[in-house]
Amino acid sequence: MTKYESQLHGATSDNLGVPSWVAADTTSSQDAPPSRIERWALRKLLAMLGNPPIQFVLWNGEELPEFGTPLSRRLHLNNRHALWRLVLNPQLNFGDAYTRGALQVEGDLVSFLEIVFRSASAADRQHSLARILWHWHNRARPNTHDGARSNIHHHYDLHNDFFQLWLDEEMLYTCAYFSSPALTLEQAQLAKMDYICRKLRLQPGETVIEAGCGWGALARHMARQYGVRVRAFNLSHEQVRYAHDRAAAEGLDHQVEYIEDDYRNISGRCDVFVSVGMLEHVGLANYQTLGGIIDQCLAADGRGLIHSIARNQPCPMNAWIERRIFPGSYPPTLREMMQLFEPRRFSVLDVENLRLHYAKTLEHWLMRFESHQDKVRERFDEDFVRAWRLYLAGSLAGFTTGWLQLLQVVFARPGLNDIAWTRDYLYKKRR
Amino acid sequence: MTKYESQLHGATSDNLGVPSWVAADTTSSQDAPPSRIERWALRKLLAMLGNPPIQFVLWNGEELPEFGTPLSRRLHLNNRHALWRLVLNPQLNFGDAYTRGALQVEGDLVSFLEIVFRSASAADRQHSLARILWHWHNRARPNTHDGARSNIHHHYDLHNDFFQLWLDEEMLYTCAYFSSPALTLEQAQLAKMDYICRKLRLQPGETVIEAGCGWGALARHMARQYGVRVRAFNLSHEQVRYAHDRAAAEGLDHQVEYIEDDYRNISGRCDVFVSVGMLEHVGLANYQTLGGIIDQCLAADGRGLIHSIARNQPCPMNAWIERRIFPGSYPPTLREMMQLFEPRRFSVLDVENLRLHYAKTLEHWLMRFESHQDKVRERFDEDFVRAWRLYLAGSLAGFTTGWLQLLQVVFARPGLNDIAWTRDYLYKKRR
Repeated sequence: MTKYESQLHGATSDNLGVPSWVAADTTSSQDAPPSRIERWALRKLLAMLGNPPIQFVLWNGEELPEFGTPLSRRLHLNNRHALWRLVLNPQLNFGDAYTRGALQVEGDLVSFLEIVFRSASAADRQHSLARILWHWHNRARPNTHDGARSNIHHHYDLHNDFFQLWLDEEMLYTCAYFSSPALTLEQAQLAKMDYICRKLRLQPGETVIEAGCGWGALARHMARQYGVRVRAFNLSHEQVRYAHDRAAAEGLDHQVEYIEDDYRNISGRCDVFVSVGMLEHVGLANYQTLGGIIDQCLAADGRGLIHSIARNQPCPMNAWIERRIFPGSYPPTLREMMQLFEPRRFSVLDVENLRLHYAKTLEHWLMRFESHQDKVRERFDEDFVRAWRLYLAGSLAGFTTGWLQLLQVVFARPGLNDIAWTRDYLYKKRR
Repeated sequence: MTKYESQLHGATSDNLGVPSWVAADTTSSQDAPPSRIERWALRKLLAMLGNPPIQFVLWNGEELPEFGTPLSRRLHLNNRHALWRLVLNPQLNFGDAYTRGALQVEGDLVSFLEIVFRSASAADRQHSLARILWHWHNRARPNTHDGARSNIHHHYDLHNDFFQLWLDEEMLYTCAYFSSPALTLEQAQLAKMDYICRKLRLQPGETVIEAGCGWGALARHMARQYGVRVRAFNLSHEQVRYAHDRAAAEGLDHQVEYIEDDYRNISGRCDVFVSVGMLEHVGLANYQTLGGIIDQCLAADGRGLIHSIARNQPCPMNAWIERRIFPGSYPPTLREMMQLFEPRRFSVLDVENLRLHYAKTLEHWLMRFESHQDKVRERFDEDFVRAWRLYLAGSLAGFTTGWLQLLQVVFARPGLNDIAWTRDYLYKKRR
C-alpha cells in the first residue's frame, strides 16, 4: 500500500470523531428507522445548504424530505454512521463516505454537485457555529519547506502512469485553453501553452524561469517553439525525472534544465518568470516571499505570468480536497494574489478569467478517467476510483458554478513601455 | 474671477509657509548668490529624487550641480523664494511656482518630467522625514456628499467651451482606445466607447446604469449603437445640462436619462453597470459603499465595467494635482479596487491595462491645448495656461513612466455562465 493509499484509507477512521453516545446508540441498531433527532439534523443540514432540490434516501428506505413524487437528485445514506459523519462535518465526510461507498449519489454526480454548490453559494452568507467549527477543524496544512515537499509528494508523486491514463499526451495537469470549444484536449493544451507564450511575448534567446513545472511540457514547448532557455523548478521527484528524460529524448536538454527544488531556492536572472498551477500550493503566508523571488530574478525589462485557480471571496479549500487530494492547497482571490505584485510595484497588464475552460478541461479528464476506470481499479482499488471520480467531478462543478475561478495574470516591471499596444495580436494567426 | 481662478491664484500665497527666518533672510537679498545652506538643500532635493540628470539654474546665473558642459534638462529658479518653496514641498510647490512663472523648464516639459519621474520612481523606496511631512501636509480632501459636490464642481463645472477647445467632438475626458496608434483622437474615443460596449456584450433592450457620465457621450453611444436604455449619473451641473441637451438634439432622450446626483443615490435595477473615470473621485473609504450599490442594482445575470486610473502601489495623488486640479482624487491599486468586487463576490472576468493609450490620449489633448492657448489665455490668464499645460504634461509623463496605470475591469455576478468563451470577438469586425 503506497503512502497515498494508506492516507486515503485513513479516511475510514473517525476524523471528526462521531460522539460515543451516537456511536453507542447507532452501532446496536443499524437497521432501526432514524430517530427524530437524526431527521432534524438532516433537515438542518439541508437548510444550511440553502435547501437545494435534493432528497436523502435513508438505510431503511425512508425519503427525506418527503415529497409527493421523489426528486431526481437523491443521496443514499447506507447507515446512520454516514448520516452523523455527514451532519457533523459535511465538507470532509461527504467525500470520505462517498469514497468508501457509505453513501451513493443517484444519477449524474456532476449535476448533483452543481445543484448543491449553487444552493450553498446563495446561502453562504449566513454564519453559524457549525460552520465555524467545520472551518476550524478543516484548516489547511502549512507549506513550510518540509511541509511543501510532503504535500507535493502526496499528490504528484502518485505514479506517472496513473496520470498518463487520463491526461493529454504532453501530460499537462492544468487548465487548457479551448480557443474553440470543439478542440480536443490535446489541441487545447497546446493552445494553452502557445497562448501563454504569446501573452509573454517570448523572443528567441531569452531566458525563462518556470516555478512549478509539472511534467515539463510548457518548458519544452517554450524551448522548441520560441527558442528560449528555460530553468524549471519542481518539488516532485517523479515529475522532474520524467520531464528530464523526455526533454533529453526530444533533444531539448541543452535548452531546458529541470531542477528538483522549492521555489524559495530559485536564484539567477531571467527575462521572463512563469508559473502555471503552482500558486494554489504556495499558501497565502508565502506570497510576499514568492513576489520577492520574482523581483530578485526578473531583468529590468522583465515580465511574467501567473496562472492559478482563484476564488471570488477568501474561503478555505474544500476540506476533503485539502485533506485527501491536495494537502496545503489554497486558491486565492485576485486581491490576495496582488500580494505578489504590489509590494514589488509590478504592473499588472492583463488578467483573464478562464473558469469555463477549466470546466471543459475537467470534462475531458473525467471522461478519460471513467473510460480507464478498470485499469485504475486494478492498480489501486474501488475506493481510489471513487475518490478520484469525486475529486474530478467536484472540481468540474466548482468551475461551472463559479465557486472556483481560473486567473491568468500578466505582469511586468513598472515603466516598461515595450509592451503590446493592444491584445489583438493574441487572436491572430502566429507569423 | 471664478471660484476656480481664485483657488488657482491662491497658489501664490504661502502654502507650506516659508519659515520667517528664511523669508526675512531672503527678501532683503534677492540678487545675492545662494547661501551654502541653499546649495546643500538643492543637492539634498536632487538626491531624494534619485539624482536625475537635470540641472538647476539659479537667479544669479549659477548652475547647480556644476558640470563641464551644461545639461540639456534645466530648471530655472527665478528667486530664492522659489528655491525654498521647492525644497520644502516639491510636490505642491513645483506646480505652483511653474504656474506663476517663478520657475521655468528649459526645453520639452514632458521629457523633463519623465526624467524626474523615472528617477524618483527608482529612488522611491527610501523613507525620510521630509517625505512623511510632505505626505501629511498634502493629504487629500474627503469625499463626503458635500465634499464630492464641491470637488467635482471645482473641475468639471469650469466651462464647457474651455474643454471643447481641446477635447474631441463627443467631449470624452477619459482615456481613449487607439486600436491603431495612428487613429485620430475622434476615432480613438469612438473606438473606446465601442470597446467598452463590446466588453459588456450589450444586447438591445437591456438597461444600463452609468455612474459618472461626463458630458454623456458613452450613454448616447450605447443607446444609439446598441439599443439599450441608460440612466447616467453625474454631480456636475454643467455637464448634465450639456449631456441632456445633446441627447435631446440627437433624438435620444427617450432612451437616455441624465441625472444630476451622487452615485450614492443610485437606485433601481439594471442589466449592466458601467463607470468610466469616476472611481478616481470616489475615495478609498467609499469603495465598499459603491460595491454595495452595484450589488443592489445589478440583475442576477448582470455584468459591469469599471474604468479607472490606477497605481502599482498605494500612493497619494500628486499634491499639486489634488489641490489645484482634481480635489479629492485618488487612483487606487488593483488590490484596492477589489474592495468593490470581493465583498459582493463579483467575479472579475477581465482586467486590461491601457496605460500607454492614456499617454497617447494626453499627447492629443496637450497638442490641441497648446494650439488653442491664445484663446485660453484670453479667457483666463497666463497662469491658467501654465497650470493646465503642467497638468496635461505631468499626466502624460505619469503614464509613459508607469507612475500611473489605466485599468478596465470587467466583472459579473458569480456563477454567470453566459460569458464570452474567449476574448477574440473583441478584435473582430462587429457584425
